[in-house]
Amino acid sequence: MKSSQTSKKEELKATLKEIGKKVYSDLDQKKFPEVAFPSRSVRNIVYDNKLKQYILGQNTVTRSAGNIKHIRPFTQLFWLAYFANKLVSESKTSTLRDVFYSSQAFDVDFVDQPESDEIITDLEAVISRPREDFNIYPEERSAIFGDVTIEYTVPGYEGKTLNLSSHPDGYLIGPSLSTAEFRDTSAEMIIAIEKGGLFTRFVEEKVHSRYKSIIIDTAGQAPRSTRYMLRRLNRELKLPVYILTDGDVYGEHIAMVIISGSVGAAHLRELTVSDAKWIGVWGSDIIKYKLPTIPMTEIDIKRIYELKKDPRYKGGIWQKELDVFLKLKRKSELEAFSKFGLTTITDKYLPEKLQEAKSL
Amino acid sequence: MKSSQTSKKEELKATLKEIGKKVYSDLDQKKFPEVAFPSRSVRNIVYDNKLKQYILGQNTVTRSAGNIKHIRPFTQLFWLAYFANKLVSESKTSTLRDVFYSSQAFDVDFVDQPESDEIITDLEAVISRPREDFNIYPEERSAIFGDVTIEYTVPGYEGKTLNLSSHPDGYLIGPSLSTAEFRDTSAEMIIAIEKGGLFTRFVEEKVHSRYKSIIIDTAGQAPRSTRYMLRRLNRELKLPVYILTDGDVYGEHIAMVIISGSVGAAHLRELTVSDAKWIGVWGSDIIKYKLPTIPMTEIDIKRIYELKKDPRYKGGIWQKELDVFLKLKRKSELEAFSKFGLTTITDKYLPEKLQEAKSL
Repeated sequence: MKSSQTSKKEELKATLKEIGKKVYSDLDQKKFPEVAFPSRSVRNIVYDNKLKQYILGQNTVTRSAGNIKHIRPFTQLFWLAYFANKLVSESKTSTLRDVFYSSQAFDVDFVDQPESDEIITDLEAVISRPREDFNIYPEERSAIFGDVTIEYTVPGYEGKTLNLSSHPDGYLIGPSLSTAEFRDTSAEMIIAIEKGGLFTRFVEEKVHSRYKSIIIDTAGQAPRSTRYMLRRLNRELKLPVYILTDGDVYGEHIAMVIISGSVGAAHLRELTVSDAKWIGVWGSDIIKYKLPTIPMTEIDIKRIYELKKDPRYKGGIWQKELDVFLKLKRKSELEAFSKFGLTTITDKYLPEKLQEAKSL
Repeated sequence: MKSSQTSKKEELKATLKEIGKKVYSDLDQKKFPEVAFPSRSVRNIVYDNKLKQYILGQNTVTRSAGNIKHIRPFTQLFWLAYFANKLVSESKTSTLRDVFYSSQAFDVDFVDQPESDEIITDLEAVISRPREDFNIYPEERSAIFGDVTIEYTVPGYEGKTLNLSSHPDGYLIGPSLSTAEFRDTSAEMIIAIEKGGLFTRFVEEKVHSRYKSIIIDTAGQAPRSTRYMLRRLNRELKLPVYILTDGDVYGEHIAMVIISGSVGAAHLRELTVSDAKWIGVWGSDIIKYKLPTIPMTEIDIKRIYELKKDPRYKGGIWQKELDVFLKLKRKSELEAFSKFGLTTITDKYLPEKLQEAKSL
């Protein structure tokens, strides 16, 4: 049986081939080859209330080999499509930085990495697929732990299985895990947590078995491959996702980006978990649990005002908790629960918030 | 058979008990209890040419409960020793941040985290053991991959074994791995590399089997638990350690800290790998391999001048390569090898440098 990951890879290669074929057919018809894709300009980024994320509007850009101004990005884009196909076909992975240097092997000119990053995002917009699908992964890695058995699809490991509860420090979420099939799990939920130290505490306190959960360390703002993994676990295993962050505006935004995505990824749909829930640390938890706090900085407060105007934050707990933070002008952290003992967070706070989440 | 990790834990508890007993015996003799340990003041940090690391000199500080100025740090230190014993006895781990908040559960007053960090370092100096030995781990995690079978000593996993080549994205180096026993390996060397993307490339290109190596991602400046792991692999498995970094002054210093430790850890001996070798990217490799470069900033150049005066950098390749960087005024990165193809770094550069390392 062909795995979903294998067919995904074949679909991608077919898509890339289509784009290449279009160039040849343009040439056969004596036309300058061109490619059209959704515009990523700020004016074309709109918030979709139904999807609860930023998406691109109707405007498209067309790059034509017949326009002297377009020749450079046109060539760069097609080189990248070629390179992406090569990566996927040879099962090799790369990073944004690495792609910048790899272009030099082909005498394709990028002034600097921001220019090659931009073209990589263009290719994402052309094929509506995140760059991880063509094997360009983030440098950052976060981690996972829990009772889920995966089956690898990467060369040398095809068909091998691994249960992700065998190493209590956690498994890196890299290319092999991102493309693995999920075979079996006893978990009933996913808990994503912002910090490595707390991730370890959750494993030590057996949160995975007590709450039948898979635990993910987002290591701050979750890397894209981690968001992608959260989405796959959510969709493929049909598991709810709960997010725990520090009790400040940055923590709230870590949760928001997992749920609704970022402005910069408005051209993508595969990085969001729209039904994930941010369960804490809320501003109101700071009051309710009498957590130790530290004062906010001016920058923190400015950030709250910015997010209050952001459409993703309209209504619900999002706006409400921003207001609480603004009123408090103080912030707290996940570790603050240790004031009441090392296991207060896992023994008291977590179950109370999971219970509360049912009504969110 | 008692494992080396179990006896280490018992030794630590015995050491902590001794310190506590000393307080009681002082009291029994109607003396104000006191504790003496090596001074960590700048004037007492000296470079040891034989050990090739900074160490503490002969000066000691004495904290006495009879001195009103000492009562605060004295009390904090003994609370920490109590808390450390609790962590180790209950097999729970913590972080610097978490200890700061935990103190509040005991009404032990720390103004801020820097104050509690300072006391943690004091306890390290008192017992000459890194804080990881009393279960205070860094928040940051790096990763490992390779054919080495480990046996856990943490609760719930005691006696279980795992081969660290079963997950190609790598295993986090956290408390469980740090305290595991090494049971078996076919590896003949350790390769530590600065970047996650390259770590993945090395696994993809089978560096572990082609060069019989264990691969470690230091994720930039190696976290202390990673330096500790490198030392254990080096000593216990008798494997040489080779370090690959970006070709700049920060890369050179990442290697130096693994080998010779830092000024801030002059009171410790267990975080260095004195016979590890920095095999690249050297300034002279930038020239030899015609790598793409970017210009250094003023800050980079200032840093070179600083390190040129550092005793750790006296002689050998250290000083030589600083001079090359200074002459070039340009820097390069590990990814720069991709200019010559994705596998140039593993197929050509790595074997050439490993060969060269034999004569270092």
